[in-house]
Amino acid sequence: RADAPGLGWGCGRGRELSCASFGRIMRPDDANIAGNVHGGTILKMIEEAGAIISTRHCNSQAGEPCVAALARVERTDFLSPMCIGEVANVSAEITYTSRHSVEVQVNVMSENILTGAKKVTNKATLWYVPLSLKNVNKVVEVPPIQYARKEQEDEGKKRYEEQKLDRLETKQRNGDVILPVINPEPHTVGYSQSSLIHLVGPSDCTLLGFVHGGVTMKLMDEVAGIVAARHCKTNIVTASVDAINFHEKIKKGCVITVSGRMTFTSNKSMEIEVFVDADPFVDEPRERYRAVSAFFTYVSLSKDGKPLPVPQLLTETEDEKRRFEEGKGRYLQTKAKRQAQMQQAAQ
Amino acid sequence: RADAPGLGWGCGRGRELSCASFGRIMRPDDANIAGNVHGGTILKMIEEAGAIISTRHCNSQAGEPCVAALARVERTDFLSPMCIGEVANVSAEITYTSRHSVEVQVNVMSENILTGAKKVTNKATLWYVPLSLKNVNKVVEVPPIQYARKEQEDEGKKRYEEQKLDRLETKQRNGDVILPVINPEPHTVGYSQSSLIHLVGPSDCTLLGFVHGGVTMKLMDEVAGIVAARHCKTNIVTASVDAINFHEKIKKGCVITVSGRMTFTSNKSMEIEVFVDADPFVDEPRERYRAVSAFFTYVSLSKDGKPLPVPQLLTETEDEKRRFEEGKGRYLQTKAKRQAQMQQAAQ
Amino acid sequence: RADAPGLGWGCGRGRELSCASFGRIMRPDDANIAGNVHGGTILKMIEEAGAIISTRHCNSQAGEPCVAALARVERTDFLSPMCIGEVANVSAEITYTSRHSVEVQVNVMSENILTGAKKVTNKATLWYVPLSLKNVNKVVEVPPIQYARKEQEDEGKKRYEEQKLDRLETKQRNGDVILPVINPEPHTVGYSQSSLIHLVGPSDCTLLGFVHGGVTMKLMDEVAGIVAARHCKTNIVTASVDAINFHEKIKKGCVITVSGRMTFTSNKSMEIEVFVDADPFVDEPRERYRAVSAFFTYVSLSKDGKPLPVPQLLTETEDEKRRFEEGKGRYLQTKAKRQAQMQQAAQ
Repeated sequence: RADAPGLGWGCGRGRELSCASFGRIMRPDDANIAGNVHGGTILKMIEEAGAIISTRHCNSQAGEPCVAALARVERTDFLSPMCIGEVANVSAEITYTSRHSVEVQVNVMSENILTGAKKVTNKATLWYVPLSLKNVNKVVEVPPIQYARKEQEDEGKKRYEEQKLDRLETKQRNGDVILPVINPEPHTVGYSQSSLIHLVGPSDCTLLGFVHGGVTMKLMDEVAGIVAARHCKTNIVTASVDAINFHEKIKKGCVITVSGRMTFTSNKSMEIEVFVDADPFVDEPRERYRAVSAFFTYVSLSKDGKPLPVPQLLTETEDEKRRFEEGKGRYLQTKAKRQAQMQQAAQ
Repeated sequence: RADAPGLGWGCGRGRELSCASFGRIMRPDDANIAGNVHGGTILKMIEEAGAIISTRHCNSQAGEPCVAALARVERTDFLSPMCIGEVANVSAEITYTSRHSVEVQVNVMSENILTGAKKVTNKATLWYVPLSLKNVNKVVEVPPIQYARKEQEDEGKKRYEEQKLDRLETKQRNGDVILPVINPEPHTVGYSQSSLIHLVGPSDCTLLGFVHGGVTMKLMDEVAGIVAARHCKTNIVTASVDAINFHEKIKKGCVITVSGRMTFTSNKSMEIEVFVDADPFVDEPRERYRAVSAFFTYVSLSKDGKPLPVPQLLTETEDEKRRFEEGKGRYLQTKAKRQAQMQQAAQ
Repeated sequence: RADAPGLGWGCGRGRELSCASFGRIMRPDDANIAGNVHGGTILKMIEEAGAIISTRHCNSQAGEPCVAALARVERTDFLSPMCIGEVANVSAEITYTSRHSVEVQVNVMSENILTGAKKVTNKATLWYVPLSLKNVNKVVEVPPIQYARKEQEDEGKKRYEEQKLDRLETKQRNGDVILPVINPEPHTVGYSQSSLIHLVGPSDCTLLGFVHGGVTMKLMDEVAGIVAARHCKTNIVTASVDAINFHEKIKKGCVITVSGRMTFTSNKSMEIEVFVDADPFVDEPRERYRAVSAFFTYVSLSKDGKPLPVPQLLTETEDEKRRFEEGKGRYLQTKAKRQAQMQQAAQ
């Protein structure tokens, strides 16, 4: 691409404040044993770029110092796998601002520095909200950005309204819990469900003392990946992540429990629902609460990187059957959207 | 196995507070170049699970907020090696409480998520003491747990008394230091002895600002492993760790020196003594002090995982000869105990 | 500043191959307890940027695939301290190529994203040599870069010749070892000397299976910082690093010993010599060898960031006295150079 300058990835001059780019070599710990970089590693880099650019923007005018907190990530697809030794190039740009929120578009490209080959691996949209450095419960005002064309602003506003609606909806879904199952049969929901606990340390947190959204997403991908691997017992990779809403902040010193269960399988994909619960057990009298939930989709890959068939998920309870149907709904909807896009592109 | 809690999920209902379990994929940095997970990585996970469950328990009733600090780990054997790509499943349960301490039993299973094979790798017993969040020198009271049967409480009390005695004894052993040797011959004590320094950073510490016991044990295993490898120049793995007592806390900002020397070799095992000394050199007028000491046992493995013969340790000084005999005593005692257990099991 | 493009740091269009830039938020683990980012963290970021850009350049023309290995870092000053929460912006540019080596200039700026304040913290020059991916002992040819002006090439050639000479010289200094001292007095060389061992893991290494130069420099800074803190028992920061030559590669699975001793003190600075020795004890019949050596200079800072007086180093042996005088020579030479530069700048 002629317009992609080395590692600046299209940050034109004169737009300093609303544009940023980063790169990093992928290491063995960033990847699974087949050498594919974890989706969670990529989500964490995406979020760091978004946090830097939106914090910088929100402090660009004299006003109350603030730190941007991740409120939502739109659905993102992992378009091609990234490998150990490749350089991940992450570029971020602010594309819309409302009074209290910032929309950031992030592109990730993998670059094989030996062959020079570059591939787009992700395009993600993130929403941040600036919180006052002095009073973390206060949302400060966002300086408006300049749009090159009026319709950019209109389209941004439409995206803003849409995500606002969706955030309200998912807030209600959040009561569910994952119950343990004794001696489950292979390919049932109980067989592959998994959880991990993590004590939130200082390096997981922003200047405000709350967990970076990217840290949370990395843990969610780790659990979802274990669920997927337990189900199909092959090498698996993250194919996409549905929109994730961050309803509640998580404070340093909390213990977080990240749990995942499979909800749906198609012929060649698995959908896993992941919950993040925070337990502020020291310091605070507060009960354990649901902080985040999301759906991850995984595919199973053969040794030469081809998608493999996936064993069908065996549903047992009424709830499992209902969730399977809901997952099927999301799957078919995504498929229809993609076909519509491809037809549009072909015309 | 009927009593093997799939993955975590075996914490029965109504016992939430005193039970926890989680899993994590083993990564390349968790293991040596032969792909065997470091004993220190496993000890660190065990301790994190214990710290979470006991801190949670000690804060479960209205009272002074507190953080559980590791006081002691009972002897633990590494029953089978764990490998990169496997999932380590750690489950923890509180099994006894005294007025000021909590006993936690932790089980670790390795799971090959591709084949579904599971193996018990460790069973460990840890003792924690709750320290007040506001006054770190104050030990707060532990809420009692409920026992299903009276004899569980009696057995717990017996274990409590035994470990208390042992802690007093080891406190006296602690004056010893490892002196440098110039131009040592191969297979002597001086030849393989090693040490490292580590500046205690924020991620090494609990909310109280003191080093996690698990971080200390991981460093101890690192040094002991290097001593073992220098002695036999082959791939080595941790076979067992003797009881470790944590006599003194180590504060953030300290430099710790971890030193190890070989004390005994049998035909197929090596015993290494490890000391941890803390140097609170900034801010505080205090002298360097001995914080922890322990014995680690290693075996040497061939490429196909079979135990190899170990070169005999050459002792030179009187002290070295005495320590060799003491190590032999521990070795024979453990061997006798194991044989007695096997006979019992066979009856 | 008119010429500082947000985060692209002046990578002009059309020069993709020879220019790169990166950013990262500084976390608690990157810094000491006073919140100052470790010099080693910065050196590691600098080297990663240099490795990416030079590997990319050396593979930009059809030829043997290769990986750039760090051969030398020129002296670099740490011009202003960086703090937790700031963004480190690293930009790299290829400024000279010889037949078998690449010169990279790297600039580091710290950016406070709350206030927008930016400061130059480092300007570094690194030399890389491309090694064949298939035969690590073969140095491949470097594609020449285009110079905007003829004198750029001439000046680059002069720098190339100078560093070549210096590399030969330091190779001879390398026989020295740091001997242990029993019960040393405060402020003597033996009192503060320190060493650590590190087992080289997969994430420390390049695609060729050799340690990244940046990983080595981070460990060197860690040891040197502990030597400095042990000497003056206050908060210390890296002020500068003398030219470092990487004479020998270090392979995955080696144990490296990093040792440091103080060589010289002025009123407000300390010079520490650091050695890196590699021990390829598994798999290979080779003896321990000296891989790198360098001089680090530290200053001691008060709570409000002012330089503090440093206790004078007490030299005892003839060798210590000689090294002190040599250190004084380096100190005076640097001071004279800096004064000459300031006078030049003032004219």
